[in-house]
Amino acid sequence: MTIQLYDLAGADTRLLFSPFSWRVRMALLHKGLEFEVLPWRFSARESIAESGHASVPVIRDGDTWVGDSWEIACYLDRRYPDRPLLMPPPSGEAHARLVAALCGALVFPAAVQIGVYQAYRLLDPGSQPYFRASREEMFKTRLEDLHADATRGPAQLAGALKSFDEVLASCDYLGGAGATYADFLLFGILKWLDIVSAYAPLDRGTPSGRWFTRLEADYGGHAGQVPRARE
Amino acid sequence: MTIQLYDLAGADTRLLFSPFSWRVRMALLHKGLEFEVLPWRFSARESIAESGHASVPVIRDGDTWVGDSWEIACYLDRRYPDRPLLMPPPSGEAHARLVAALCGALVFPAAVQIGVYQAYRLLDPGSQPYFRASREEMFKTRLEDLHADATRGPAQLAGALKSFDEVLASCDYLGGAGATYADFLLFGILKWLDIVSAYAPLDRGTPSGRWFTRLEADYGGHAGQVPRARE
Repeated sequence: MTIQLYDLAGADTRLLFSPFSWRVRMALLHKGLEFEVLPWRFSARESIAESGHASVPVIRDGDTWVGDSWEIACYLDRRYPDRPLLMPPPSGEAHARLVAALCGALVFPAAVQIGVYQAYRLLDPGSQPYFRASREEMFKTRLEDLHADATRGPAQLAGALKSFDEVLASCDYLGGAGATYADFLLFGILKWLDIVSAYAPLDRGTPSGRWFTRLEADYGGHAGQVPRARE
Repeated sequence: MTIQLYDLAGADTRLLFSPFSWRVRMALLHKGLEFEVLPWRFSARESIAESGHASVPVIRDGDTWVGDSWEIACYLDRRYPDRPLLMPPPSGEAHARLVAALCGALVFPAAVQIGVYQAYRLLDPGSQPYFRASREEMFKTRLEDLHADATRGPAQLAGALKSFDEVLASCDYLGGAGATYADFLLFGILKWLDIVSAYAPLDRGTPSGRWFTRLEADYGGHAGQVPRARE
């Protein structure tokens, strides 16, 4: 049965760009599960009301709703243990937790300056007031003042990725020879930026840039083929 | 046959405190290999001349000399694949490389302010001039000016450990349910500080502090029983 994944959509519903839904989308691709992505908006929360969750990502797998990207990843490995694991033992979960912590401490602080205001501008008018108010409360500043331009944004992001670059200079994936959920945690953030940004957020010539391009080409080129705002 | 591990010794040769040698010592314990630790000094480099390496750690395993802590860890897994692995597949090497990068980017910058000057003061007089000159060149400051006191040192170190704390709040080890080389990379730095510092460098009540205490108790309590300068 096809799994339904809800993702944050822009006014143009071909643009689907929640960083957390992208983590889940890559997880579904990795496990080789059939899925469809359904657009969701802050202005129309009722489409996922049955899930008990207030925002995306949520998935519906038959009669089972699961929300929160980490919980969904754990669910998928538990429910489909015979498919490629997202957090392979012995260290997969601890490894993913470290990457999640680094995303929070290092990558998101740089990423929000590229992505939040540009994502805001892509939303439907009905979603914008809530998004602005909640994000300005979260970041304690106006979205316009949070925003980093095409010079500062990529430079700050490159700085935040330096420790990942060291790994990816020697390994094809954060997971080693193959991708694991550790990879998708970081990829989700960068794919969000890649979709919403009017300028290229990531230097594709660095180890992390080449890794990003590699993951876009994997799984039949799925992530490389989605529409982006700047095209 | 007993493996010989050379470690940096103080004027008091019971104090053995190279962070890199401690990574190797924990690796040898993890693999359950018999070893002895031999003191080495900057003022008497000739004891390891045969190894082709200019500083510790080096190990002698029968007729084989291996230097550089990362190379030694790789050697031990390759040479003793049937003993507990330091970098278990599929992701062990990539995971360890990430922790190594974070140690370089986050932990060492805080640790050197606690450890370098205090280590200098413990060295034999013959080693001190080289150590001072090389470290002052490396850090572009006098050792006395690099030094952080008992207030600033532990606070800075605690800040550098926050991402590790997030993992260790949920997992017993960076490797998950059991330790891997990822753990020993970080442990080596903290054990160096624990041995040389006149003040307690690490809050034992944090997740990383409890993890450190756990690793000191593991392997028959080996790491918890070595002499420290402040005792």
